[in-house]
Formats: sequence, structure tokens, C-alpha cells
Amino acid sequence: MTVVGVIGGGQLARMMIPAAINLGLELRVFAESEGSSAKLGASQVGDCTNLEELVAFAEGVDVITFDHEHVPLDHLRHLREAGTAIFPPPEALALTHDKTVMRQALADAGLPQPRWAIATEGTLDDALAAVGGLPCIAKLPVGGYDGKGVRIVETPEEFSDWLALGPVLLEERVDFVRELAQLSARRPSGEFAPWLPVETRQQGGVCAQVLSPAPDLSEKLVAEAQSIATTIASTFDVVGVLAVELFETRDGRLLVNELAMRPHNSGHVLTEQSVTSQFEQHLRAVADYPLGSTALRNPHGVMINVFSDASMELFREAAEQAPDIKFHSYQKAPRTGRKAGHLVLTGSDADDIFARAMTAWELLESRKADS
Amino acid sequence: MTVVGVIGGGQLARMMIPAAINLGLELRVFAESEGSSAKLGASQVGDCTNLEELVAFAEGVDVITFDHEHVPLDHLRHLREAGTAIFPPPEALALTHDKTVMRQALADAGLPQPRWAIATEGTLDDALAAVGGLPCIAKLPVGGYDGKGVRIVETPEEFSDWLALGPVLLEERVDFVRELAQLSARRPSGEFAPWLPVETRQQGGVCAQVLSPAPDLSEKLVAEAQSIATTIASTFDVVGVLAVELFETRDGRLLVNELAMRPHNSGHVLTEQSVTSQFEQHLRAVADYPLGSTALRNPHGVMINVFSDASMELFREAAEQAPDIKFHSYQKAPRTGRKAGHLVLTGSDADDIFARAMTAWELLESRKADS
Repeated sequence: MTVVGVIGGGQLARMMIPAAINLGLELRVFAESEGSSAKLGASQVGDCTNLEELVAFAEGVDVITFDHEHVPLDHLRHLREAGTAIFPPPEALALTHDKTVMRQALADAGLPQPRWAIATEGTLDDALAAVGGLPCIAKLPVGGYDGKGVRIVETPEEFSDWLALGPVLLEERVDFVRELAQLSARRPSGEFAPWLPVETRQQGGVCAQVLSPAPDLSEKLVAEAQSIATTIASTFDVVGVLAVELFETRDGRLLVNELAMRPHNSGHVLTEQSVTSQFEQHLRAVADYPLGSTALRNPHGVMINVFSDASMELFREAAEQAPDIKFHSYQKAPRTGRKAGHLVLTGSDADDIFARAMTAWELLESRKADS
Repeated sequence: MTVVGVIGGGQLARMMIPAAINLGLELRVFAESEGSSAKLGASQVGDCTNLEELVAFAEGVDVITFDHEHVPLDHLRHLREAGTAIFPPPEALALTHDKTVMRQALADAGLPQPRWAIATEGTLDDALAAVGGLPCIAKLPVGGYDGKGVRIVETPEEFSDWLALGPVLLEERVDFVRELAQLSARRPSGEFAPWLPVETRQQGGVCAQVLSPAPDLSEKLVAEAQSIATTIASTFDVVGVLAVELFETRDGRLLVNELAMRPHNSGHVLTEQSVTSQFEQHLRAVADYPLGSTALRNPHGVMINVFSDASMELFREAAEQAPDIKFHSYQKAPRTGRKAGHLVLTGSDADDIFARAMTAWELLESRKADS
């Protein structure tokens, strides 16, 4: 039996557990704390930046994959040399560890992306000119997520604190009509399977809602999104799920915004809607099993993130009003702005499911946990 | 958070784990051995007929439910008196612990069932006459499953070994055209939700295949099957999933064959096909949460039990031929005739999915595990 090790005990690792149970794969989670979201699968608790602990975790594990991007790439190369498969490989992961590496790699591959430049204190003017001037987007190259490490800036002073620390990635402020995400998966053999693109709606830099598939998809748009994904996956030898966040510009182009090489918030709706969930597909890919069908069981799906305390107690009232709503709790301690769970509704009427999902969501967010 | 205790570590408990993960319920499994199918959820390993061990398990558990029917009812009453909810309640479970109790209870409730009688060495002739003579069905009242403890008999000698031990349940040999199963669930409050009836196909007394919904269902048949289920559920205060196995007779009647008050092999197809799986519904019911929708996402579904070593290695080839096939491994040690997993295919063309599922199944059963 293949033993898959997952580094990180967050909700992505948590949601890999049901898929592993069905497939009969053994999943071992390296969690950062005893009470992690994926604690049911945790075989080790510790510091995933510590090589010694990683070596211990890799013992008896056939393949290592990830819930997050916080493991030093050199450590991963060390584990691979010692005989454990690492999927996605460290060379691919490099693009997700440093946004400037990603921008350069995508540029080298000829992929469409916003204008970008690396600004230092000495090259600020050139960098600003390269992205079309202010206002623009400033990003910390390393460590940002969910809107953290990203600022829309109108003056250089608004990111001078970052510049004092080191290079800052500047990107043009794209005139986009909406944001899409192209989910796909790739096996070591190269087998590649995309889902239809979804539309992601952000609030404060955090994904709030996902509509699947994205409304009004033209064949051309689908082909272009999937072509970008397959180019990235094959060029950088990605193995596992790849999420490509895209801007759809007012003039009809697709530009790559961000990448993730693991299951992604934008793909949660697929658990109910697709024949194969992104979690099952990720495990199939990293364990080198045939990829599952990405056909949709329901023509429309909507996912809404829950930021309140997503306990089942709160779900009671929402479930009474919508018996077809599916609830996923991450069992995380409540913290303002932290994703605590999500809701999914699928059906044949996109407007109906969106309205009902929003009603359920408002109910959940209006409550505080009693217990 | 509600803590649900499951007694028994078989595949039914195993398949409750994904549902508990999604709902954010804590599941604790009382398993019979270290290497049980549900070992990931095991909080205790021991003997579920030992009251002391059961009391220890019930500590901190809000509600106890079941993977099997092997816990003495007196022990369950003791746990309930000590403050743990037991769902289904011992009074309902009594029907599933002793087939003669079930037959009498169904008769008292006026429900349709095969002619039956309890035979002892002194009442054999009367009992045979009551069921219409030989050939008939002889059943051990307690402990049978998957065809064990059930014999089609043509002479009294064929069950004289059982008669020497105690009473034997005799049932008429029903002239049936097919077997159906009516799955449903009921909450403590009485809320009741049935799925559409499925057709079960047996081989050697063991469920081999399930077609969902059963082909050619008339409205009358659906209404009758669901009426039988709701009568049983409410009359006996069943809480959780109820599976009613039914004979459809040549003259168009439905007769109750067997009952199970837990998720059931005949309902496995619902995990992919229904908005709410039987495992999620069972947990919602016993934790007293609103029941989920029993609508079907796909018009047709087929489930086939796998008896070979259902390892993921074997699944590789089948998955290559049918990327939409869903595989469930129980991670049980291989043993002849033991269910090791199951396959599910869903779609819009019943003949197509049945043919493809059978092809995949034949492939799996023709292989032995290499590892």
C-alpha cells in the first residue's frame, strides 16, 4: 500500500483524509500542533522547517506532498536524495515559494501575466515605469497568502517599509472584469486532467465565493485557461493538483495572477460537484494512479467560505432551511478573518443555489457559537 | 461539539469517518481489533460485549450508535440509564438482534411479510404447515448475516442440527421477481427522509450488486416501500438509517425480508449518487441534526461489491479503463467471500454504467494482489 505523507495539518490535509479512506491509501500528516485541523491523520507533530524532524517523518513514507508552502526546498531535495518521492518536486514548488521566481519562470515560458518588476530602493523608478506607474500592486515575494503581503499602492511610501527589508514585487494593476481559477491535476507520467474554470469572488483579498463552472464560459476562454494550466504543469513538471488564479481582462485576455500546487480553496466546490474531488485527484496524482474523471455531476455549484465559528451547532438552522446544503467544518479555533469552514450547494439553477447559499451563509455569519 | 461513539470497527464505521470530518463531529470508534477497517477513528479496542469496557467507552460520548448488532441490549440500557443517548434505542435494536422478535413485531404492526413460524422439535409439523410446507427457508434467529444462518431446505433433516440447539425461524419461500431495499433515516424528533428504493442482486445469499434507483419503479411501488419504512421507523422509534430489505412478489406485493438499523450495503451507492450519503445521514440523525436532502445527483447508479483483495494496486487497471469509477477499499485482510471493498459508477445511461462497472469488477476479481 502506498503511504502518502502530507506536510501541514490545515484544512487541505484534513480534506485529503476522506479521499485517502476511500482509496485505501495510508495518509500520514506532519502537523504543526496537537489540535490541528487534520489531527485525525496526524502521525507526527512538530516543526516542518527542521530537517531532522522531516527525516523522521519521511521514514516509511513513499511520497511526500503538501498542505502549504512553508518547507525549505533544500530540505525537500535532501529527502528526495534519501529516497522519498516529493510531489510536486522542489523545482516546481520554487515557483510557489517566491513570487519573483514565479514571474520570471512564467515570463520565460511565454505565459500571459500582468506587467511586473522587482523593485529595490535603488531601482524603484525603473520598476514603477515597467509596471505602468502608480497605482500598482506591491507584493512581498515570500510568505503572503489570503491578501497578506499584498497591497494596492498609490504612492511609493505605502510600501517603503517593505522596500527597507528587501526587494518588492511590483505588478500592474490589471483592469479585470473578473477572477477565474483553473484547477487541474497532473501525474508523474504526464497525464493531465483539467476541470472547467471557476469564477472566484474575493473580499479584502480573501476568496469569498466560488461559482462553478464560471458563468458564461466561451469555448475559447476554456481552451485558453486549460492551455495555460497544461503549459505550466508540463513546463515545470508539476505533479498533483495545480490551481492557476487568472484575471480575465476587460479586453478578453487571461493573465496569470497566482499559482498553487496543491488543492486550493477555489476547488472545494468540486468535492460535491465533480466525479472526482480535488483531494482525491491530488492523492491519485502524487501516488501515480490514473486520474479520475473531472466531469461534473451537477451543472452548477457554489462554494462560500465561512469565517465565523463553523461549528455544527451553527449549521443546524441553515440545514433546516436548505437540506441540500453541504457543510464542511475545519474544526479550527475561531479567529477573526480565519476560514473556519465552507458551504457548498449544487443544482441546475445557478441563481437559485447562489441565493440559497448566501442566505445560509448570512445565517451562519450572524451567529456566535453558544458552546 | 457532539461526540458520536460507534461500536464496531468494520467498513460501516470506516465510511462514517469522512462524513464526520465534513460535519465537524467527533467520531470515536470502539473497535474489536487493532487492525480494524475503521482504525483511523478508533479510540478504544476491546470486547463490546463487556459492560465495563462499554462504560469506559461511553465516558465523554454524547450518543452511541453502531456498526453491527452484537452488543447485548441490557448493556445498552445500562449505558442509557447512566446518561448516554443510544440511537437506535435498544427497544428498536431488539428487532435486529432476533429475527423471531422482528417477525412478531412486524406482524403486530400489520406489516406485509412472508408467512413465518417458530419451529421447535415438538412443533415442527405445525410450523411447516404455517409457512405452506416444504421447501421453505430456515433461519437461525440470532447471529446470521450475509447468507450465514439461512438455508433453503427441502426436508426437515436439512435443519435438524439447528433444531437440536433451539427454536428455528421458518419462512415461506417467496415467489419473488426481485429484491429491493428501502433506505431511509429518522431523527429523534420523528423527521423522516427516504431515498428511492434500490434493487439488490444477491449471489449465494450475499449482496453482489445494487441498482439505484431500482429499474422500472412505479409510483405505487415507491409509495408502498416508503410507507413500510416510515411505519417501521415510527412504530419502533428507530433513530438513524433504516434499511428495509423487501421481496417484490410475482403478484406485485412487497414483503419485508430483513431489517438493518444502521448504514447498509444496499445504500453504499448513495455516497456518490445522493446529495446526502447514508453515512452522513446516519450521523445527522443520531446527533439530532436536520436530515439532508435525499435527492439524487445522477439519475442512475450501480454499486458492486468486491471480494478479492481490494487494494489500490488492483484498482489501477480498472481506473485506467473507467476514469469515472469510484473505488472504496475497506482495508481488510483478504479472506475468501469477505467483502473487501466496492465500486460505484453513476451516470445517465443505466445499461452503460452497469456494463462498465461489471467490466471493472471482473478485472478486479481476476487479480490477486502483488504486494
